[in-house]
Amino acid sequence: MSPETLLKLLTELQQGKTTPQEVMDRLAHMPYEDLEFAKIDHQRALRTGMPEVIYGAGKTDEQVTEIFERMAKTGSNVLATRVSSSAAEAVRARIPGASHHAVARTLVLRQEDRLSRHGFLAVVCAGTSDLPVAEEAAITAEVLGNTVTRLYDVGVAGLHRLLAQRKALTEARAIIACAGMEGALPTVVAGLVRAPVIAVPTSVGYGASFGGIAALLGMLNSCAPNIAVVNIDNGFGAACFANSILAAMETQAG
Amino acid sequence: MSPETLLKLLTELQQGKTTPQEVMDRLAHMPYEDLEFAKIDHQRALRTGMPEVIYGAGKTDEQVTEIFERMAKTGSNVLATRVSSSAAEAVRARIPGASHHAVARTLVLRQEDRLSRHGFLAVVCAGTSDLPVAEEAAITAEVLGNTVTRLYDVGVAGLHRLLAQRKALTEARAIIACAGMEGALPTVVAGLVRAPVIAVPTSVGYGASFGGIAALLGMLNSCAPNIAVVNIDNGFGAACFANSILAAMETQAG
Amino acid sequence: MSPETLLKLLTELQQGKTTPQEVMDRLAHMPYEDLEFAKIDHQRALRTGMPEVIYGAGKTDEQVTEIFERMAKTGSNVLATRVSSSAAEAVRARIPGASHHAVARTLVLRQEDRLSRHGFLAVVCAGTSDLPVAEEAAITAEVLGNTVTRLYDVGVAGLHRLLAQRKALTEARAIIACAGMEGALPTVVAGLVRAPVIAVPTSVGYGASFGGIAALLGMLNSCAPNIAVVNIDNGFGAACFANSILAAMETQAG
Amino acid sequence: MSPETLLKLLTELQQGKTTPQEVMDRLAHMPYEDLEFAKIDHQRALRTGMPEVIYGAGKTDEQVTEIFERMAKTGSNVLATRVSSSAAEAVRARIPGASHHAVARTLVLRQEDRLSRHGFLAVVCAGTSDLPVAEEAAITAEVLGNTVTRLYDVGVAGLHRLLAQRKALTEARAIIACAGMEGALPTVVAGLVRAPVIAVPTSVGYGASFGGIAALLGMLNSCAPNIAVVNIDNGFGAACFANSILAAMETQAG
Amino acid sequence: MSPETLLKLLTELQQGKTTPQEVMDRLAHMPYEDLEFAKIDHQRALRTGMPEVIYGAGKTDEQVTEIFERMAKTGSNVLATRVSSSAAEAVRARIPGASHHAVARTLVLRQEDRLSRHGFLAVVCAGTSDLPVAEEAAITAEVLGNTVTRLYDVGVAGLHRLLAQRKALTEARAIIACAGMEGALPTVVAGLVRAPVIAVPTSVGYGASFGGIAALLGMLNSCAPNIAVVNIDNGFGAACFANSILAAMETQAG
Amino acid sequence: MSPETLLKLLTELQQGKTTPQEVMDRLAHMPYEDLEFAKIDHQRALRTGMPEVIYGAGKTDEQVTEIFERMAKTGSNVLATRVSSSAAEAVRARIPGASHHAVARTLVLRQEDRLSRHGFLAVVCAGTSDLPVAEEAAITAEVLGNTVTRLYDVGVAGLHRLLAQRKALTEARAIIACAGMEGALPTVVAGLVRAPVIAVPTSVGYGASFGGIAALLGMLNSCAPNIAVVNIDNGFGAACFANSILAAMETQAG
Amino acid sequence: MSPETLLKLLTELQQGKTTPQEVMDRLAHMPYEDLEFAKIDHQRALRTGMPEVIYGAGKTDEQVTEIFERMAKTGSNVLATRVSSSAAEAVRARIPGASHHAVARTLVLRQEDRLSRHGFLAVVCAGTSDLPVAEEAAITAEVLGNTVTRLYDVGVAGLHRLLAQRKALTEARAIIACAGMEGALPTVVAGLVRAPVIAVPTSVGYGASFGGIAALLGMLNSCAPNIAVVNIDNGFGAACFANSILAAMETQAG
Amino acid sequence: MSPETLLKLLTELQQGKTTPQEVMDRLAHMPYEDLEFAKIDHQRALRTGMPEVIYGAGKTDEQVTEIFERMAKTGSNVLATRVSSSAAEAVRARIPGASHHAVARTLVLRQEDRLSRHGFLAVVCAGTSDLPVAEEAAITAEVLGNTVTRLYDVGVAGLHRLLAQRKALTEARAIIACAGMEGALPTVVAGLVRAPVIAVPTSVGYGASFGGIAALLGMLNSCAPNIAVVNIDNGFGAACFANSILAAMETQAG
Repeated sequence: MSPETLLKLLTELQQGKTTPQEVMDRLAHMPYEDLEFAKIDHQRALRTGMPEVIYGAGKTDEQVTEIFERMAKTGSNVLATRVSSSAAEAVRARIPGASHHAVARTLVLRQEDRLSRHGFLAVVCAGTSDLPVAEEAAITAEVLGNTVTRLYDVGVAGLHRLLAQRKALTEARAIIACAGMEGALPTVVAGLVRAPVIAVPTSVGYGASFGGIAALLGMLNSCAPNIAVVNIDNGFGAACFANSILAAMETQAG
Repeated sequence: MSPETLLKLLTELQQGKTTPQEVMDRLAHMPYEDLEFAKIDHQRALRTGMPEVIYGAGKTDEQVTEIFERMAKTGSNVLATRVSSSAAEAVRARIPGASHHAVARTLVLRQEDRLSRHGFLAVVCAGTSDLPVAEEAAITAEVLGNTVTRLYDVGVAGLHRLLAQRKALTEARAIIACAGMEGALPTVVAGLVRAPVIAVPTSVGYGASFGGIAALLGMLNSCAPNIAVVNIDNGFGAACFANSILAAMETQAG
Repeated sequence: MSPETLLKLLTELQQGKTTPQEVMDRLAHMPYEDLEFAKIDHQRALRTGMPEVIYGAGKTDEQVTEIFERMAKTGSNVLATRVSSSAAEAVRARIPGASHHAVARTLVLRQEDRLSRHGFLAVVCAGTSDLPVAEEAAITAEVLGNTVTRLYDVGVAGLHRLLAQRKALTEARAIIACAGMEGALPTVVAGLVRAPVIAVPTSVGYGASFGGIAALLGMLNSCAPNIAVVNIDNGFGAACFANSILAAMETQAG
Repeated sequence: MSPETLLKLLTELQQGKTTPQEVMDRLAHMPYEDLEFAKIDHQRALRTGMPEVIYGAGKTDEQVTEIFERMAKTGSNVLATRVSSSAAEAVRARIPGASHHAVARTLVLRQEDRLSRHGFLAVVCAGTSDLPVAEEAAITAEVLGNTVTRLYDVGVAGLHRLLAQRKALTEARAIIACAGMEGALPTVVAGLVRAPVIAVPTSVGYGASFGGIAALLGMLNSCAPNIAVVNIDNGFGAACFANSILAAMETQAG
Repeated sequence: MSPETLLKLLTELQQGKTTPQEVMDRLAHMPYEDLEFAKIDHQRALRTGMPEVIYGAGKTDEQVTEIFERMAKTGSNVLATRVSSSAAEAVRARIPGASHHAVARTLVLRQEDRLSRHGFLAVVCAGTSDLPVAEEAAITAEVLGNTVTRLYDVGVAGLHRLLAQRKALTEARAIIACAGMEGALPTVVAGLVRAPVIAVPTSVGYGASFGGIAALLGMLNSCAPNIAVVNIDNGFGAACFANSILAAMETQAG
Repeated sequence: MSPETLLKLLTELQQGKTTPQEVMDRLAHMPYEDLEFAKIDHQRALRTGMPEVIYGAGKTDEQVTEIFERMAKTGSNVLATRVSSSAAEAVRARIPGASHHAVARTLVLRQEDRLSRHGFLAVVCAGTSDLPVAEEAAITAEVLGNTVTRLYDVGVAGLHRLLAQRKALTEARAIIACAGMEGALPTVVAGLVRAPVIAVPTSVGYGASFGGIAALLGMLNSCAPNIAVVNIDNGFGAACFANSILAAMETQAG
Repeated sequence: MSPETLLKLLTELQQGKTTPQEVMDRLAHMPYEDLEFAKIDHQRALRTGMPEVIYGAGKTDEQVTEIFERMAKTGSNVLATRVSSSAAEAVRARIPGASHHAVARTLVLRQEDRLSRHGFLAVVCAGTSDLPVAEEAAITAEVLGNTVTRLYDVGVAGLHRLLAQRKALTEARAIIACAGMEGALPTVVAGLVRAPVIAVPTSVGYGASFGGIAALLGMLNSCAPNIAVVNIDNGFGAACFANSILAAMETQAG
Repeated sequence: MSPETLLKLLTELQQGKTTPQEVMDRLAHMPYEDLEFAKIDHQRALRTGMPEVIYGAGKTDEQVTEIFERMAKTGSNVLATRVSSSAAEAVRARIPGASHHAVARTLVLRQEDRLSRHGFLAVVCAGTSDLPVAEEAAITAEVLGNTVTRLYDVGVAGLHRLLAQRKALTEARAIIACAGMEGALPTVVAGLVRAPVIAVPTSVGYGASFGGIAALLGMLNSCAPNIAVVNIDNGFGAACFANSILAAMETQAG
């Protein structure tokens, strides 16, 4: 039930064209439509700077292209994740303005000015192999309106490199820490800062790393108290969660 | 928002005591309350013969007793599952009318006449060890208003005992088949009938039965096409699902 | 032992050409053949409108083609699932009448009028990635003689889209709900209706979705009571199980 | 190396009582002590209102008592989690001021005024069985200086009860959502709000819930973007993580 | 359908009291009863020296006692496995002739002379902790009519002790090898002999032995070709399988 | 130490050319060589009709070819399993006499007359997808000197087809039963015969079959007592184990 | 075959009392006894200071006592691990000289002077809960003749406490690092030293620590190169492995 | 902070150009730099003969080439593991001096003379399929300055071949034992020697070997006391760990 329809219905009641019982019946028999009505407002609020998102994995190039085009027509920013090179080419053949980040496997179309949030988010990872996940997180966070500081190649094996970045870590409002193998990086990072650390296990590793399970379990069992975990390789989700924290701070600060 | 409140609000609009926009605002700002209103009707419909249910595991005797008493006051039938002997005694000290089935670990208080549905449901299991699950299913189904035929001790190891029950199996409207170990009973049963078979893996077995996982996997991978599976030891859920089938048939037949 | 053979044997007994003991011996030493005899009748009953089915995965194009041709000669409808594009081409080169559904990975040859059952089955899924499973279910159900209403793109993330389909959900005789990732869709659907909901976990997702295990476990542990589960990606099995429910209703209604 | 020692050493250098090389040698050979020096300041900052924490599981009553006493002497607040009833009695025999929360299995000694943070944290759970985890989270968060709003008994099976709490959910700065079984509650909650939702899988359930693994996987695979997950039953960790978010907001707001 | 009934039916046909078609109808409509008839003969054959068996785990003392008594009345030997001490006492209070083997957790009532098979079966295990499983196997095999040579305390860590038993191993017709931890014993034994080796993983071990899974996997992956595996701790099954081999040799030798 | 060397050494001792202590030293310092000496005799005995075996998986075409050639030169029969088509071609380019079985993925070179054992081994499987494993078992068993009766396409879903083969099953000295999915076939077969049944789980299936784990667990937990299990897809191992049984019978019968 | 027996046999050959062929036959037919002969020497070498060891878990108090007494009579040192308090009391009632370490669950009887090896072994653990494992390692290592430095309560959460022990860590010849939860301690320790680090996952933790699996996987996937891992809670094994390193160094140093 | 910078700072203090407080501030505000300072010395010591290492898996050919080139410029030896053939070609196109070992999947550039350590390390494996892991271990160990004795094709199935290598095994200072399938090789090897045995599970095998998990579990549960385990297929890690042992012996021996 759209706002217009509801207003019309209530006006008819006011004008004596219908009865309270009739209105009540209509509301009772379609109780969820006004939920949709409420949703609209909610969604509009959410959508300021919020991109439309396509999860590219398991979709054909044609499907990705079609959905991307449909979303692009809304005038919103559009973000596609897990996009193959061929899908990226297919989309860009139609929408040349979309920019493809090969390592992050993302495709971004900017059509709206984004928010410029205060402070910054740090994205930390150990090495070259974690880059796809870290970059998916970083680019998603940027599309959501955040400033991102990238701190890469700071694995626990070279502890001094991580410690050399301590200033940036301490000043970040929230930290996304991506790690494969034993997944100890978020624990070490969390021991150095007071900000919330969002741990992203990556599927990097071999043998008993089990595609990221070892890292996932390590992060879930971290003895540091300021850690929470998202799914394996879920750079996108980590960025959304971090954004929910920074957005709340913004609101608070105002 | 209760039906009374809504009716009052709409009547005020009809009487000019408020405006369409004001009513709309109230509806918009509490969009879910009318969902609750819709729910009430829905729940009333559901409740004819439907018991209140308590899941007893992980609750103290005091908690079970308190919840049971509160539910008993509604005048509905009350069913508690996974009730320990001591909890059963505690409840029955207060509500002597509640009947305790030690094997099924259930506690039933009948305060309403139950439905008497057409046809019957067959509950099948292999042996003594599966009885707690089978009886939980059978008693739950009876409390829900179904007639239950129990076919116990018909394990695959003694195939002739199962085949001797073929008539009852063929005539049942739906079959709940409980089995532990390798969990082959539902597959064999499903090969003999056309009715839907609800497979319940039980945690009976040892070693690599892994508390019912072997049976669960066996049932999920059954080559028979008329099988669906519920959780390990979930006699209660199987009965509810079977009831949803028989209730639908009832409606259909009318 | 064919009916003809048995009749001949008994006639010989009647005619004094053999003795009761001899007949008994023959029956005793081949006790299973009459099972086959019983089967024939049973199978014929089953076969009205029932397709011959080929599971295409793990078979070479040649094997699929050979089996398909052999089945086609029986005059029955033929359904092949998990058919690769190349296998589909190979079959259609020989049997042009077979129709290939690329997304559902099915190949259907209709040679008989199918049943036209009362009421309809709803097939629900969240998004593009679940389509292969949902379509396998829908097409199988149709081949089995059911009317299917497809409700796609109604994931839990966009709850209002699901709720907008509430009427169709409420009127469906049974619902097949396909979902990957956390697998919450069947639980939410089951909370809205009284009909049995057959949950199909799909292997859609990444990281700790473990090829559908997360969704499978979520569905097995659903707190909704009218859910039962089939194997991961098993759209075919879900349709067969749903068909067993609707067929039983049919019988009942008569 | 304490600040005093370092200052003394450098003053000696300034006064010509030692040489640069000698100072350098001392620094080189104990390079980590100044880390400890830096730590002291850091720890003091952290400790304002921060309790000393004891993890009671796997410790004897004597061990818990001894550690609790030692910590109590620092004058800090002391929090012990996973405390058995007998350990609680043992501690309270020595320190009567410690208050024992039996359901939450916590023991709290308040010796300092706690912070009074702006806004509030919502702790949500489904039913009686999740209470130990939810209360561990709530009490920990309170000890850390937060205001907590408890929203219990709002499981997905009774969606209207959850929706009735929408106002509180919307106004919370962060939400801790505890759920066992299929673990869908955090996903549904996250769909209703914009705040970060910290999901806590509980070990409540049976069969294929595998002591919380089903809920854990469900939460990790949630299709909602504003969710992160902590360990099974880790109410304490969820509270610490939530506190890190609210503390950061505080800093920001000033 | 009992042999008597069938004979009567056929006699009636011979005597012209019924027709071939009528007999055929009766056979067709109860096709499985004659299966039961066949079974009787089969079971009688099986039963020579074959004990009735009760699986005691998960049964109450009362259930074990009741079943044991009922079986004892058939005059067969009776074997109960996984019998608790209290259940053993309860049975022996009624049937003093039953002998209880505490380590093997078995209860045996001998009422018939057992077969005395040629040759012997070797039961091998590593140490004290594997004794319950090894003894369950040995006692079961003896009750089934086999001669058993026990070779205990011959773990791989003390290879010379195993090698000292090489003569017995070489002469055994089949070998049951029980091992926990890494489960290498059957592999080593199988490398020394040509006879079939039945590997029984035991739940002995700790940590990553996972209650016998490590041993089970080790045995399934054995590089020795003359090994097959039964369930964890399944001494009973190993003995039955070994018995099927020795019984077949017997038949062959005759 | 070869027999010749040992004999020479002892003769020297007899002839006074060396002393007991010297001989003893040589034996003590190379205590394992005589093991090898024992082995030779053992291996020769084993080798009558025993093929040399190559496990082709994970080896390059070159490696397979090289090993095959080297083994062929011994004059023994040679069996290679898990041989890719390209490796088979590579070998046959050098050794045209080797016969390639594409379905079984085996390569066999016969250079010796094989044994002709009494009786036969039955190899049973459900359908087309299990053929590679069943044929690997059958061909291996044949190369080892056994007569094999193949009973294919007798899955549990078409029980009458299996039962129609009951005579062959009853007469087999041992049975190899291969099954994927829920793995119930060996259990059903074992219920029909007294011979030992060697169960081979195959990796056929999808979803929660987990590459054969469901079938493996089902077989390990079988309620039939005359079953033992080999590794997933291990047709080769099943044949070797079956051969050890039939060979022992042979010996016995002599 | 004892050295004496062999010498006698060879002397008889030298004296013409037997023939080379006869000696050869005896050697051929009992080829493993000389292995035992070789073993004796080997074992004697091993046994200098090496205790007899009993693994107490899964053994009754009577079994532990009996084995302990038997071993004590050999005059060796005796070490029993995983000893319950009641078993310890039972042993000490007979052998008062045995000392019981309640936390380590060990029982030690010293009857021989132990080796006094150069250098020391460091045993590191995080907190109170890891003590049983760490102490089992430390006491075992001491009984094996090593000097042990205990560095407890140095968890990663309080990094400065670990770093304060850097001198001891650097000087240790080998380090045993015990940790539960996420198991990061060995990785951090290994980053600080060049000595081999033996990682012992402990079953300390909750939820997704899965009884030590999370820690085990973390350690197996460590990015530090000088780590190897033993079984969960296997303090005994870690000590034996460390001892094999220090013993080799000893040999080397001489 | 480099040593030069620190010295300069301290000299300035000595010269009165700065104050103790100023120096202290600089040290306090960059407390980790001196850690780096300490590291430098440490790293230099480590680096004698120590190669730079690149883990090639999950990196593009371009990334491998770029990193390899950068490392090559330091003048150190460079080792790349898990290098694909195409990456090896890409690197060698730029740096022809790098030698590619196809089986071991390594790429080695020697630019420095390596250490020549006393004694040798034995690398043991069962067969052709384990070669990639064994060679990765052997080549890594050689690059680290060790002498390596390769003992290949000594699987447990041909025990005499292993025993024939007993001399080399006994003399090795440490042993790396690689095995797939049931992983029993390290246990058997460890029973023959006193040196530390580093067990490397390989992913060789099929079915229930689960990519090396069966071997891993077998090794972790080994009943031999002188075994520790590294990750599946982690030949590199085993070599580094072995090197840490041999390097420590070297130090000791001096």
